[in-house]
Amino acid sequence: MNVQEDVRKPLDRLAEALAPEMEAVNALIRERMASRHAPRIPEVTAHLIEAGGKRLRPMLTLAAAKLLGYGGPYHVHLAATVEFIHTATLLHDDVVDESRQRRGRPTANLLWDNKSSVLVGDYLFARSFQLMVEPGSMRTLEILSNAAATIAEGEVLQLTAAQDLATNEDIYLQVVRGKTAALFSAATEVGGVIAGVPDAQVRALFDYGDALGIAFQIVDDLLDYGGTAEAIDKNTGDDFRERKLTLPVIKAVARATPEERAFWSRTIEKGDQKDGDLEHALELLARHGAMADARRDALDWAARARASLQILPEHPIRDMLSDLADFVVERIA
Amino acid sequence: MNVQEDVRKPLDRLAEALAPEMEAVNALIRERMASRHAPRIPEVTAHLIEAGGKRLRPMLTLAAAKLLGYGGPYHVHLAATVEFIHTATLLHDDVVDESRQRRGRPTANLLWDNKSSVLVGDYLFARSFQLMVEPGSMRTLEILSNAAATIAEGEVLQLTAAQDLATNEDIYLQVVRGKTAALFSAATEVGGVIAGVPDAQVRALFDYGDALGIAFQIVDDLLDYGGTAEAIDKNTGDDFRERKLTLPVIKAVARATPEERAFWSRTIEKGDQKDGDLEHALELLARHGAMADARRDALDWAARARASLQILPEHPIRDMLSDLADFVVERIA
Repeated sequence: MNVQEDVRKPLDRLAEALAPEMEAVNALIRERMASRHAPRIPEVTAHLIEAGGKRLRPMLTLAAAKLLGYGGPYHVHLAATVEFIHTATLLHDDVVDESRQRRGRPTANLLWDNKSSVLVGDYLFARSFQLMVEPGSMRTLEILSNAAATIAEGEVLQLTAAQDLATNEDIYLQVVRGKTAALFSAATEVGGVIAGVPDAQVRALFDYGDALGIAFQIVDDLLDYGGTAEAIDKNTGDDFRERKLTLPVIKAVARATPEERAFWSRTIEKGDQKDGDLEHALELLARHGAMADARRDALDWAARARASLQILPEHPIRDMLSDLADFVVERIA
Repeated sequence: MNVQEDVRKPLDRLAEALAPEMEAVNALIRERMASRHAPRIPEVTAHLIEAGGKRLRPMLTLAAAKLLGYGGPYHVHLAATVEFIHTATLLHDDVVDESRQRRGRPTANLLWDNKSSVLVGDYLFARSFQLMVEPGSMRTLEILSNAAATIAEGEVLQLTAAQDLATNEDIYLQVVRGKTAALFSAATEVGGVIAGVPDAQVRALFDYGDALGIAFQIVDDLLDYGGTAEAIDKNTGDDFRERKLTLPVIKAVARATPEERAFWSRTIEKGDQKDGDLEHALELLARHGAMADARRDALDWAARARASLQILPEHPIRDMLSDLADFVVERIA
């Protein structure tokens, strides 16, 4: 990120550059999350949507469309579609993970119940499909419905793969593409498709979203083990406690001695954890260079994201997207 | 039903008349319920899809298309879409209702877990949207995505309305249209749309599916209180025990004395039930003619379904659909 030119975060600069479009997206979201008959729906949805998420995914759609000179109204529908799919996924994820907190607030499954989260999530999925039909573009429909299937497939794969020491980096990447990158890449790709640009540029947008999403998730997984900081804070180790195999552990397992493998098997596969286990896990991650290697992977994906942008036209928004790729990995740089 | 002409059930006659198309639907369902990456998905789906459901909904789509002379391949996609939406809904319903049995077998949430049912349901929803995109018809996309939203809305409405004595017949109808009739009417309507028939015929198909679905659900709700039989068997009263307000109880509550109202409030609203309560509930339903009136409503809706068919061309399938409306209410006739 070129801090001499603009010290603000790339997400804030994007939000400013896309302010009128983003306002239209928010208005459309508010309109479509309503329900004539079931007041429980807007209650649950508002709790999550108005909790101040960053709206990163819809912003990617708006950015791609604007950067490529789209002049019509439908990038707003596509961006709102993307946010609805994301919100539906969060509601169901929190049920599946039995989460109690999201965006610093109690989860919907805690405030209402699992039933409401499941059914309101279904409602938002259905609303997202209604929204994506409106632009009348078969190609964006294919991209977004494929993304929805990839997301659900990744989530199911994670159910079985997360606690299995046989999970390797290929399977991890599959899960990450499903749970995170598929929606990032669909968000950027549909922005290009709706702008009617050549296939090579659409492909570049897909590649950018895909690489950005993967970098984003690896960083998330690294930060869960404290990132590059040595200190352990209270949030360190959530994935360990929830027995989720992520990239750092997958790397450490691949390099484990038989005794270390027994440790991972006990703590992750069998879920038998005691005091001091997290500290020992962190030590193993450091000893095998697993954190450093996962960090290098994240930086690699961020570099690929930036490189994908090169065939796109010069534009301030292109620079912001490039800086965004750096920003995503900045927390572990 | 004209038993002198053909004594077989209308559903069996429809299945025979539509056998080649139905085989194509089943092949497409098997193909699309697969997952390259997550074997849990076909396991869970096969458990439900191969349990021998009647395939009533996809058959409605095939019947409408064939009756109206459609010659293309896409009624098969639309029929499979409808069955996928139905299956996804069943998976989520069983989580929401904490059900243990479905189609005479243990539910997926019992055999695997709630997580798998939620996420595999999401996968089937997404697959249904991929399928509905393939025919390239914007109008069928609108109909089916609207139906998906109506279904989810009806399910959420039921969450709050089912245990509230203020729920009246209008709200009941809203819930029933959501949970049952919306998919019936979408199934028949898209069959007409894909056949390219005039709007009046499309409307007639919608009306048929809507009325058939409502009759179907009222019968289901009546049978839960033993239908017209006096005997109580072990399945009688599931809705009462689960505190679900359905049409017979709504009618009885509307005619209740203050003392009777207190009984319904204790058992349904507060869920405080004792031995003998079900028997007392059945007595109240009989005393106020609630069962007889709900039965009359079901017969009314079946008659409306039959009447809707009159503007459609003469065809053996039209007669089967007409007989199907009678058959749906036969169990309470």
